[in-house]
Amino acid sequence: MNDHLDLLFKPRAVALIGASAKELSIGNVIIKNLLHYQFRGPVYPINPKVDEIRGLKAYPSVLDVPGEVDLAHIVIPPPFVPGEVENCGKKGIKTIIINTAGFKEMGAEGQALEDDFLARAKKYGIRIVGPNCQGIINSDPGINAYCNFTFTYPEPGHISVVAQSGGVGAVIMQAFHDMGIGQRMYASNGNGSDVSITEIISYYGKDDETRAIVLYAESLGNPQEFITIAKQVTARKPVLAITAGRTEKGAEASRSHIGGLAGNISMDLIYKKAGILTFSSQEDLCHAAVALSSQPIPKGNKVGIITNTGGPSVIAIDELVNCGLELPPLSEKAASTLKGTMLESASIRNPLDVVATAGPGHFKSAFDVMMKEPQFDSIYLNFVTPPFVDCENVAREIVAAARTNSKPVVCNYMTDKQKWGGTSKILKDGEIPCFDFAETAARALHSMVSYNKIRSAKEGTIKKFTDVKTDVVRSILDNARSRRREVLTAAEVYNLLEAYMIPVAHWKIVSDVNGVVAAANEIGFPVVIKVDSETIIHKSDVGGVALNIKDSKEAIIVAKFMNRKFGEEFQFLVQQFLPKGRELIIGTKAVEGVGHIIMFGLGGIFVEIMKDVVFSIGPVSNTEAMEMIDTVKAAPLIRGFRGEKGINKEKAVEIIQRISMLGTDFPGIRELDLNPLLAIEDEILVVDARIIL
Amino acid sequence: MNDHLDLLFKPRAVALIGASAKELSIGNVIIKNLLHYQFRGPVYPINPKVDEIRGLKAYPSVLDVPGEVDLAHIVIPPPFVPGEVENCGKKGIKTIIINTAGFKEMGAEGQALEDDFLARAKKYGIRIVGPNCQGIINSDPGINAYCNFTFTYPEPGHISVVAQSGGVGAVIMQAFHDMGIGQRMYASNGNGSDVSITEIISYYGKDDETRAIVLYAESLGNPQEFITIAKQVTARKPVLAITAGRTEKGAEASRSHIGGLAGNISMDLIYKKAGILTFSSQEDLCHAAVALSSQPIPKGNKVGIITNTGGPSVIAIDELVNCGLELPPLSEKAASTLKGTMLESASIRNPLDVVATAGPGHFKSAFDVMMKEPQFDSIYLNFVTPPFVDCENVAREIVAAARTNSKPVVCNYMTDKQKWGGTSKILKDGEIPCFDFAETAARALHSMVSYNKIRSAKEGTIKKFTDVKTDVVRSILDNARSRRREVLTAAEVYNLLEAYMIPVAHWKIVSDVNGVVAAANEIGFPVVIKVDSETIIHKSDVGGVALNIKDSKEAIIVAKFMNRKFGEEFQFLVQQFLPKGRELIIGTKAVEGVGHIIMFGLGGIFVEIMKDVVFSIGPVSNTEAMEMIDTVKAAPLIRGFRGEKGINKEKAVEIIQRISMLGTDFPGIRELDLNPLLAIEDEILVVDARIIL
Repeated sequence: MNDHLDLLFKPRAVALIGASAKELSIGNVIIKNLLHYQFRGPVYPINPKVDEIRGLKAYPSVLDVPGEVDLAHIVIPPPFVPGEVENCGKKGIKTIIINTAGFKEMGAEGQALEDDFLARAKKYGIRIVGPNCQGIINSDPGINAYCNFTFTYPEPGHISVVAQSGGVGAVIMQAFHDMGIGQRMYASNGNGSDVSITEIISYYGKDDETRAIVLYAESLGNPQEFITIAKQVTARKPVLAITAGRTEKGAEASRSHIGGLAGNISMDLIYKKAGILTFSSQEDLCHAAVALSSQPIPKGNKVGIITNTGGPSVIAIDELVNCGLELPPLSEKAASTLKGTMLESASIRNPLDVVATAGPGHFKSAFDVMMKEPQFDSIYLNFVTPPFVDCENVAREIVAAARTNSKPVVCNYMTDKQKWGGTSKILKDGEIPCFDFAETAARALHSMVSYNKIRSAKEGTIKKFTDVKTDVVRSILDNARSRRREVLTAAEVYNLLEAYMIPVAHWKIVSDVNGVVAAANEIGFPVVIKVDSETIIHKSDVGGVALNIKDSKEAIIVAKFMNRKFGEEFQFLVQQFLPKGRELIIGTKAVEGVGHIIMFGLGGIFVEIMKDVVFSIGPVSNTEAMEMIDTVKAAPLIRGFRGEKGINKEKAVEIIQRISMLGTDFPGIRELDLNPLLAIEDEILVVDARIIL
Repeated sequence: MNDHLDLLFKPRAVALIGASAKELSIGNVIIKNLLHYQFRGPVYPINPKVDEIRGLKAYPSVLDVPGEVDLAHIVIPPPFVPGEVENCGKKGIKTIIINTAGFKEMGAEGQALEDDFLARAKKYGIRIVGPNCQGIINSDPGINAYCNFTFTYPEPGHISVVAQSGGVGAVIMQAFHDMGIGQRMYASNGNGSDVSITEIISYYGKDDETRAIVLYAESLGNPQEFITIAKQVTARKPVLAITAGRTEKGAEASRSHIGGLAGNISMDLIYKKAGILTFSSQEDLCHAAVALSSQPIPKGNKVGIITNTGGPSVIAIDELVNCGLELPPLSEKAASTLKGTMLESASIRNPLDVVATAGPGHFKSAFDVMMKEPQFDSIYLNFVTPPFVDCENVAREIVAAARTNSKPVVCNYMTDKQKWGGTSKILKDGEIPCFDFAETAARALHSMVSYNKIRSAKEGTIKKFTDVKTDVVRSILDNARSRRREVLTAAEVYNLLEAYMIPVAHWKIVSDVNGVVAAANEIGFPVVIKVDSETIIHKSDVGGVALNIKDSKEAIIVAKFMNRKFGEEFQFLVQQFLPKGRELIIGTKAVEGVGHIIMFGLGGIFVEIMKDVVFSIGPVSNTEAMEMIDTVKAAPLIRGFRGEKGINKEKAVEIIQRISMLGTDFPGIRELDLNPLLAIEDEILVVDARIIL
């Protein structure tokens, strides 16, 4: 597979099928880009009507090209694409970028054409990028491949970009360029009919010169495969993604744009599961990528600040603390050293304000001392260029300090980059990540800390419970299916839960008034009595649920009343009535292409008003389950609050994992809700549940 | 007062006391700046040791200057400053910028020097900017005053900046400059010993060429005066502020930096009260200022999107919807017109995707139709510059459309600004606000919508309740003060609340067991019995509170038990026991320099876990009170939820306003908490309260 991607990203010769002499055309722009970017191999324009394009000899067909070709662009209208794929096959070309749009995204006719060229590609062992895409770029000085119709010529660097939408990819590429930051490889695969984002990320993962990977996707063909591959990459280098389609309107535009099937919450969950850093701001993402690709990863969240200006330091602290970073104080020893080396007006603490008049020596000493303080994991620098300071030598000290230490430095660099060109160049050549604003520098540092957390997180275990009765569940589900029922009955639900050892409030199904009384006596009063029927929905709204029934007399009255109201064509569910406890909800839902998503939250107003629930893609490990419990906003209530005991978190973790396993074992379960569970003393018991196939 | 600020911002001649021939010095940089920025009047370097500086004749003393001087800089060490202020007075100079640092912010000695020069300034009627500041800039082509030691030379424009911290001011000035955006005036007043931020904002407010004002302050000398003045300005033009010191660490740095006394929550509240747009990101603020100063204000929150690229449109929608903006659909008429004018692959809806190959005619038609749709208040444009499109003419169509319509246009402009210099210039000259990212453009538009909301908000009324008994309250407070008590007793608290007609659950203070029974019978069972004592705190923790006492027998047992437990040196509070209702809290707190802050929220876990409370600076109008109630996160519970009735919001508004009036009438009330109030049926009753003087 990688051989093909090598042909794609390191082509030795490129043909352009649909090359054009017309300047304002894609078929011309790609030729121009290859030439301007100084592609190291031959470029073959293919056009039967002209002899040359931009000084290059044109050929009537790709079959007429004299030399070997590694990569062909196709930019001609859709109906002609399959035939040209066939020609490429005959010519022995193994990779094709189809820039042309008008396939799957335009409906059935386009889909047919796409199927056609894919079949031909398969026959010849050709890999396809696109259609409806830009292509690739490789800035490697030995290659200089600009197989793309965009306009930003990146310098060599260490960030590689893959974007489903070329529009977003181009914006990100331009943003790095505007920041003076080089890039390694770029790919936009559009409809992604063959070569996938997963493959490209895997390829970047193996490229030694790529230190950070930027990703924009609106959907992923095979999320579980993506998670597996991306997880291997994120263990070694950071992957940063924009989350798109967060809102429904956004998701709608996304669907019509690329013909994908993005489930929008799930993109965030997929990224989280894969260890990918996510961003809702492209700019924040670019800043983080710059920092992550140029500095070591901090070992923790503790920051030392050096500043030569006051206000920006206030803003930096706001943002750092807001992001959850910490600012430990200076040690006494450090403070006393600095008292001897700093200017009198300096403020010796963390933040260390060296003041605007500080020169190179002051900065050197500040870095010497702060870098050695073991309580700092990173250094945040505010550096304004005062017109009365030797800023170039200050910059040299900053670079030297960053080079000789293993702690990262990020810099809010406040200057006029034209007037302070010399200083700016020293910082750039020294790979000091520089940002225009205190808060953007702070957020970049926060992303570095987040990546450290991802990289060093303990891998949890996905428990295989051996005490479950899969045969019981299977027969319940088969039986329901055979009766074409989508909603399980109460008896089925509780039996199924018990088969997976999920603790349920005592219950019994009976068919008449005498049965109710017997069951209630067996369970013990007080009880709940519910009608259990396929046809009566919203039971509590129609009088089909009676709570807190205290004795046989009450039970008889209620059961008779229900018989009168609903006829006799239903059964009674008699269940233990539990005292007030902390309400929880746990659920799972099948999401196409992703598998089962698990949900956890507190019940009642917490879910309905506060929307205070967390999701995770299954299978959920014990550490993931614990993280879910700890990250709901109402977590203090779970831990225990004002003398009230907290819930038994281990039991909650176990239930989450059992539900997760149930989803994995029985993909046919479409939705399952335990709502609520009651946490009472040390127990957690399901008191109501619903399962849909 | 404005005469003085005219001398400051439009000086006809400037002297620099402490001018220096040394290039890396403030005394030289200011001369350089005045010359390079082509100041229109004479510049007089003052230095007794040299004859000339940068080609200008130097004078030994300001008294030796031949001509009149409107403005003097002082950059000499602090001990010499008062004497030079005296000299300026003798020379008839009426405005001074003291750039020198080392006054109030360095402690008592510095404070004494500051007091000294202020007294001398007052004697001569001199206004002082600073000390510990940068100074001012005025880009007016007839003036070109660069009385400042920073390095960014702004082009003329319509945004004026005032910053307490010169560091932040310089960053903002540079950011506008980097965006190619001109600026009008700039001021950084440092310690603000005399000329205040309020005065400067008022001055900018009256300047016709200033269309938007940017503010950075870490503290405000007289917040109530600031609110009054700023409110007048924000009614006419937008004021945008960075909120600094949001976190405690931030507030700490802020204090040591400028010697101010920033209360950090209250800065946000002050800005809100004054109608100022607040930002936690400097960049977002700059973007909003650019949009607000170049385009008309939208009449509402409904946006039409025109785009020539897919992915960025997805991101734009995400951000717009996330900000609360709406994207109504195209009318059928508009859609049918566009079907005739757009390319076949265009997507005719909102967002209108004209596709990348669209040329000037397509854009013209898109704008013609979208601008006419009455359901859109603004147009959001995504414009990437495809290398195969006549982008300059597209830009001309965009500018023409914006010019001939009263709806604002903001643009996410995706390009290489060097290569597309012509296109960029057309957009810039046409005052189209252009942003590099979809989300930043969307947030700028959101700020415009927010300003429209501020400007068009109905002024509420601050109700003067005439039924209150101020004499009762005064005597309660006087009595407590005369006994040196800071915490009022229960009887005092409830009497005080009743004097302000705040509904309280029935209560009675009695001194013995018989009294308890009589009171309970009078109030009606069930009741609550509490010990009321100055010395017993945390009553409920020590058994000093008994809830839900059902009859005389229980009352006697409880009262006797309390007597035994606490001795007989206390009184009993007997109070109506209310059934469960919705818990609310309302409070007020005196904040130095600001007055009383009012708080509203739901009680219990909502305040303690969710921190779901809102604050407002008093006096609170009815519309402000209603907004407080409507903006807590749990507002759905207040409106009524799942069949449960909502609370009587009018009554809550009235209580908030009465509490606000109480704070205004009696500034000596330090803290007052009604916690909880119970909303039951149509009533809201205080069931527990605390007042601290």
